[in-house]
Amino acid sequence: MEANGFRPLDEKSLVEYIKATPALSSKLGNQFDGLLIKEVGDGNLNFVYIVVGSAGSFVIKQAIPYIRCIGETWPMTKERAYFEALTLKEEGRLCPDHVPEVYHFDRSMSLIGMRYLEPPHIILRKGLITGVEYPLLAEHMSDFMATTLFFTSLLYLSTTDHKRAVSEFCGNVELCRLTEQVVFSDPYRVAQYNRCTPHLDHDAEAVRNDNALKLEVAELKTMFCERTQALIHGDLHTGSVMVTSDSTQVIDPEFAFYGPMGFDIGAFLGNLFLSFFSQDGHADQGNDRRAYKIWILKTIEETWNLFEKKFTTLWNEHKDGTGELYFPDIYNSPELQLLARGKYMKSLFHDSLGFGAAKMIRRLVGVAHVEDFESIQDVSKRADCERRALNFAKMLMKERRGFKTINQVVAAIQ
Amino acid sequence: MEANGFRPLDEKSLVEYIKATPALSSKLGNQFDGLLIKEVGDGNLNFVYIVVGSAGSFVIKQAIPYIRCIGETWPMTKERAYFEALTLKEEGRLCPDHVPEVYHFDRSMSLIGMRYLEPPHIILRKGLITGVEYPLLAEHMSDFMATTLFFTSLLYLSTTDHKRAVSEFCGNVELCRLTEQVVFSDPYRVAQYNRCTPHLDHDAEAVRNDNALKLEVAELKTMFCERTQALIHGDLHTGSVMVTSDSTQVIDPEFAFYGPMGFDIGAFLGNLFLSFFSQDGHADQGNDRRAYKIWILKTIEETWNLFEKKFTTLWNEHKDGTGELYFPDIYNSPELQLLARGKYMKSLFHDSLGFGAAKMIRRLVGVAHVEDFESIQDVSKRADCERRALNFAKMLMKERRGFKTINQVVAAIQ
Repeated sequence: MEANGFRPLDEKSLVEYIKATPALSSKLGNQFDGLLIKEVGDGNLNFVYIVVGSAGSFVIKQAIPYIRCIGETWPMTKERAYFEALTLKEEGRLCPDHVPEVYHFDRSMSLIGMRYLEPPHIILRKGLITGVEYPLLAEHMSDFMATTLFFTSLLYLSTTDHKRAVSEFCGNVELCRLTEQVVFSDPYRVAQYNRCTPHLDHDAEAVRNDNALKLEVAELKTMFCERTQALIHGDLHTGSVMVTSDSTQVIDPEFAFYGPMGFDIGAFLGNLFLSFFSQDGHADQGNDRRAYKIWILKTIEETWNLFEKKFTTLWNEHKDGTGELYFPDIYNSPELQLLARGKYMKSLFHDSLGFGAAKMIRRLVGVAHVEDFESIQDVSKRADCERRALNFAKMLMKERRGFKTINQVVAAIQ
Repeated sequence: MEANGFRPLDEKSLVEYIKATPALSSKLGNQFDGLLIKEVGDGNLNFVYIVVGSAGSFVIKQAIPYIRCIGETWPMTKERAYFEALTLKEEGRLCPDHVPEVYHFDRSMSLIGMRYLEPPHIILRKGLITGVEYPLLAEHMSDFMATTLFFTSLLYLSTTDHKRAVSEFCGNVELCRLTEQVVFSDPYRVAQYNRCTPHLDHDAEAVRNDNALKLEVAELKTMFCERTQALIHGDLHTGSVMVTSDSTQVIDPEFAFYGPMGFDIGAFLGNLFLSFFSQDGHADQGNDRRAYKIWILKTIEETWNLFEKKFTTLWNEHKDGTGELYFPDIYNSPELQLLARGKYMKSLFHDSLGFGAAKMIRRLVGVAHVEDFESIQDVSKRADCERRALNFAKMLMKERRGFKTINQVVAAIQ
């Protein structure tokens, strides 16, 4: 056992831990016979165990003090589990339909016990690779983003509550630094862990030599580091979402902190764009993926358009509330309110496009790639898909302020 | 005595306090005969005592739990003294030539003992009203702003150090809320404590009905609330600066927190603009103030131009340092560095103009006015001066992005 009571668990020691923890053992009806425990962590950072008994189930997620996919050479504070639990609870309070319930948190063990998202829940990214349509995805994700972002922003919170929360989440600095490095820095320089499909070597080099792009990414990075706009999930890609045809659940907010809203929106939209560009690599005689590509683009459009509608509706509903940015005796006519909200949403839209582009670029020439492309066996085909994604992302980052609607962005692809 | 050991002092009880406090009594060489103590607080918030003995001197500043110029009906945390002391020490470390030394801080008493800025030091605002030129003012203030802002920004600090400091200063939230209210909100609505020269009633009403202006001030307020760019003084008007012909000392940073740099720069430049517009009200047969107005405008130009030069020089000197925003292996050519700095400074310039305009407007139609205008006895003349200042400020806030240089701004006055 390490200092402060931390010890990494395995399938065996986990059983003892559960037996000694009433909040967990009670979820199993204290029935331990035939308990099934399976380690399923396929993310980059943690260990995840599914625990299923005869009378109940849950998931155990334990953070370890390094980055799992790199190894002990890249240490990473296990305190991230504290911020993940804190955020799961806060997001769950705001949006219970789309966030798994937390049953138990043990800070010294960096361990969270939470609802097991039972089959047929799968990681959204895997569904997208298989070509499954999720008709409620845009509706659900716009719900999640609109509620979690609105209610933690100064449009709803008082300055007092906002600064208290900002201060708390400043503690998650190591995870913020990791994002700064892998999203905003490493893709734009020669870096130890960068990699790319060999055919893309020249494209990666072009990114590193693109001054206009590097000026844009500096602006986005500055916003990421300085702007405490709302409690953001911080890693809202399609691997942080579990889905069935009628359920959408957002998990893994260990990168959460008070940052720019556009970083979450952009992460989700950017990863849908990545999925779009990967589809040609998954086409076969049985399915040319043409209809599916259209569905993805429609989902991108709907996600932003529904988000914008829901977010501004929340704003309107709470315009006389606790928020201190737009007092109703200053923004005192429907006309002025419309102007103010239009200006705010336009700026948020452009932030989202910029961050979305940054999230795409980092998945193509940075350290962590996405299965959407990695699973394309034909390397030359994969490179073609990736190159189109990269060129689109570069254009999007540089030209984002020229787009007025998401439909224009989607049209720019076709 | 109140809870937590706080008791407001007066001239008498202060002597006992000093005798019981070695850090203070030693400054007087433990000589208390003929001790002179004078209360001189002419600001809006606190009590200030000058203490002069035969062998030494200092100033005692004590915060009380309400706003002095309003009374006990407007409570204000005396914890502000903690953030003032913290900031004085930090600014003093970074820029010792222009910040008075702190000798003693007593958190439970909300009391700071610091260097007495002996005569002929006077408040800069009073010197400007009298028409005194300070040939080193631009040089000194650009030093102060460049060093305090650069070294507390992410251009110098690591993300880790920055977030730690941001978190600490989130505690000064009540003072931030006060600024939000009196600078960014009250001037744009009917508010209890607003006042203006009677001739300006219609102008004040026009501010409250100016939608374009209210859209701009929302953007500035949002930046003030959300952007943790650097440790800012938070109240850097000409009443927070003490001067002689060769000394410039910045005092009273109780509003300090991590906010947008432009708020400090704008506060200083905006108050110089206010001084400029007030000069016609101080002209008499002996001095038409024409040459003085030219000196003020020259000082405005020099302050920004020297600030820009010094700030970018510091950036260049520390480009391979601890800062994590612009890594030298990404911004890896003099050409790209020049572009990146140019973009950053352009944005900071526009922020400074916007905040400067906001600080002007609030002094004309908000709660706290400035002696520059208040001391003009002829009400009609005062109103003329104030109206010109107000119209300039409104133009500046709305048109700020059109200005490329401070010289263009100054030219727009003439």
